[in-house]
Amino acid sequence: MRMVDIIRKKREGGELTDRELAFFVQGFSRGEIPDYQASALMMAVFFQGMTRRETAALTMEMAHSGDTVDLSQISGVKVDKHSTGGVGDKTSLICGPIAAACGVKLAKMSGRGLGHTGGTVDKLESIPGFQTELPREEFFSIVNRTGMALIGQSGNLCPADKKLYALRDVTGTVESLPLIASSIMSKKIAAGADAILLDVKTGSGAFMKSREDARALAEEMVRIGQGVGKKTVALITDMDLPLGRKIGNALEVIEACEVLRGKGEKRITELCLELAANMIYLGKQAETPETAREKATQAVASGRAFEKLCEMAEAQGGDSSFLRETEKFRLSPVKWEVKAPKTGWITALNAEECGLAAMELGAGRETKESEIDLGAGISLLKTKGDFAEAGEPIALLYGGSAEKCRRGEERFLAALELHGEQPEAAPLILERIEKADP
Amino acid sequence: MRMVDIIRKKREGGELTDRELAFFVQGFSRGEIPDYQASALMMAVFFQGMTRRETAALTMEMAHSGDTVDLSQISGVKVDKHSTGGVGDKTSLICGPIAAACGVKLAKMSGRGLGHTGGTVDKLESIPGFQTELPREEFFSIVNRTGMALIGQSGNLCPADKKLYALRDVTGTVESLPLIASSIMSKKIAAGADAILLDVKTGSGAFMKSREDARALAEEMVRIGQGVGKKTVALITDMDLPLGRKIGNALEVIEACEVLRGKGEKRITELCLELAANMIYLGKQAETPETAREKATQAVASGRAFEKLCEMAEAQGGDSSFLRETEKFRLSPVKWEVKAPKTGWITALNAEECGLAAMELGAGRETKESEIDLGAGISLLKTKGDFAEAGEPIALLYGGSAEKCRRGEERFLAALELHGEQPEAAPLILERIEKADP
Repeated sequence: MRMVDIIRKKREGGELTDRELAFFVQGFSRGEIPDYQASALMMAVFFQGMTRRETAALTMEMAHSGDTVDLSQISGVKVDKHSTGGVGDKTSLICGPIAAACGVKLAKMSGRGLGHTGGTVDKLESIPGFQTELPREEFFSIVNRTGMALIGQSGNLCPADKKLYALRDVTGTVESLPLIASSIMSKKIAAGADAILLDVKTGSGAFMKSREDARALAEEMVRIGQGVGKKTVALITDMDLPLGRKIGNALEVIEACEVLRGKGEKRITELCLELAANMIYLGKQAETPETAREKATQAVASGRAFEKLCEMAEAQGGDSSFLRETEKFRLSPVKWEVKAPKTGWITALNAEECGLAAMELGAGRETKESEIDLGAGISLLKTKGDFAEAGEPIALLYGGSAEKCRRGEERFLAALELHGEQPEAAPLILERIEKADP
Repeated sequence: MRMVDIIRKKREGGELTDRELAFFVQGFSRGEIPDYQASALMMAVFFQGMTRRETAALTMEMAHSGDTVDLSQISGVKVDKHSTGGVGDKTSLICGPIAAACGVKLAKMSGRGLGHTGGTVDKLESIPGFQTELPREEFFSIVNRTGMALIGQSGNLCPADKKLYALRDVTGTVESLPLIASSIMSKKIAAGADAILLDVKTGSGAFMKSREDARALAEEMVRIGQGVGKKTVALITDMDLPLGRKIGNALEVIEACEVLRGKGEKRITELCLELAANMIYLGKQAETPETAREKATQAVASGRAFEKLCEMAEAQGGDSSFLRETEKFRLSPVKWEVKAPKTGWITALNAEECGLAAMELGAGRETKESEIDLGAGISLLKTKGDFAEAGEPIALLYGGSAEKCRRGEERFLAALELHGEQPEAAPLILERIEKADP
């Protein structure tokens, strides 16, 4: 078998066999197939696509290219949750504790973020003492005891995907549906959970700008999951404006606490309850999504969900007094008020621009080596649909220096649109995709 | 400027600017742009094509990526000739001397062949003493004196094309019209001639299997040549069966002598006269292609063209007595007769299969390092359109061992089709493409 023949076959629109895909993934992983052949194949896939069979085979080859996690030491149905990423997305910190409070087992491994803000692991590290690197045994034991633990990715998970993604990033071959789907699902499959909830974002701040693309990606991923015997559900949710009122690492932990205490913004609360309900349903702690939703609502109302977050934080060495008294979090020294440049209704608050503003403030990583300022970020005083008088404060920026805040403000104002008429409220949860078991 | 943005632009069907193409070619040439980005761009070009402006800019960037040859020390109009390659193609050895005998200046640099038989340089080296490596000054002086010299490629000509072609070869991106056209024309432009004659082959033994593809390639190359002020003409000619009666290095020199002495097969003689006529026309030694054709015919009939070959061979150190008495050439030791497997008309003699048969005999190179057996090859006793009785000899194979001949025979018989009806004669010269000066 020769790699050049595989490239030519895909180039001509042929369907690669399982053996050909295995030859590629294994050879590439071992360094026997050079990057220049892999990138040519990726570009051919960009143009010719992949059949469902090919996408599934690629996913499984990548899932098995390194270590796989064996969660059998954890009792019960283990549920994993994945978001395709957005601005202000702290939902894992909220729906995780809600689901765990309802009996779901969540043994979650998260990557560090590369982008507007940190990943879930970075956010948790803003809680003093919180350990995101734990030995496997301790990780399992915390999940068995509290129902939930959240650590950084460890071990050699999906090395083929890691290598391929890095190559796609610099060769203009990221935006291919089968490649995105197989990259995400290979990691979820290697992580060992029994069921998977996917939060596929769409809109200005999402990777998938159009709802059609988001739906196609969601369908593909659900199909892959079901195909390997892992019950998979996807929600397609809006990411046209930032999620919630806070963007940044410590700031997002603060907002998670607010939502879990029933004091959060309505929109993000609604999304987290829906995500949690689906996790409860997937984790077989409720017969239907509807009863799962009731359980989730009850867990928040009773305070059990918030206590679960505190319990998990303590189990991982974190000081939960910060969660109970969030004013203890130390935010970045320069606090900068952004004022409405004119009077009107906020008709748009571009999520991507807000994310870039947070990045300017120091909340995100531009390169893998960048240091994150955990106290930096944005607190929105107003958001889409609100009315603002000219000169009225609409956001607070937190940054390490006035210069950072000045650049952040410039970006933030670029995200903002003010008009004479109140905009219609856009729905947050657009679709739910579930397929019958195969 | 970032390479990944250039790849994405082409991927989306955009037209690259001259600056972007220069950035790519120069960066790639210097090793600053990695192979994996170049191969992704090549695959994007395969799918999205290139505009005329892009193809011309790519050609010129590659032509100027290394040394360019300055032929100003040679007086008169310098004509170059290029064939896209085929089986038994010894036309340069024939039309070159005819054109030179009519006053055309031909300073030709040829590569060594990689494929069925050697290149023109390998063929000439079967003449004892013939030197294909000459100092630049001596090369020019021979052309000025005799009208013609033919040497191997020296210097650092089109290094960007060389590097890019090697990459395309292993990444499934060879078959792209703008990439083929720019690769050929960049080398012709760097080689410094004033006018260019292209022999674009089509058919089973050619790179361009269909006439439409061959025409498109020819038109593109003529356009590029004219665009940089080099008068360019293309002939589209048939390569469905081998050219002439002999395939192999010494064997092809022998056939060249036969044609130049007016004793060649009609079909190849016709092609060589037409090629020579176009060179005479391009070299401004005749007003019209018709008068040029008369001059070419006259040069052969008078023996001047054959004398020109001998003169050139002597000037380059070759023993011209071999050309005058071709039985002096030492062919490979095992002479193997192939007999017709049944009675009938030869309706096809697949050029590519014949080429592979010659390769089995030792006449070609499988890899750059392979040694060529200059005495190996095939002498056709019958060809397409001839009638053969079962058991009648139809070809003589020359090889270094009986085993090589056995394998060669197997391949050769695979090329052969015998049927009950005489096939129609197919035309050899299909089209001539000339464009008005820009």
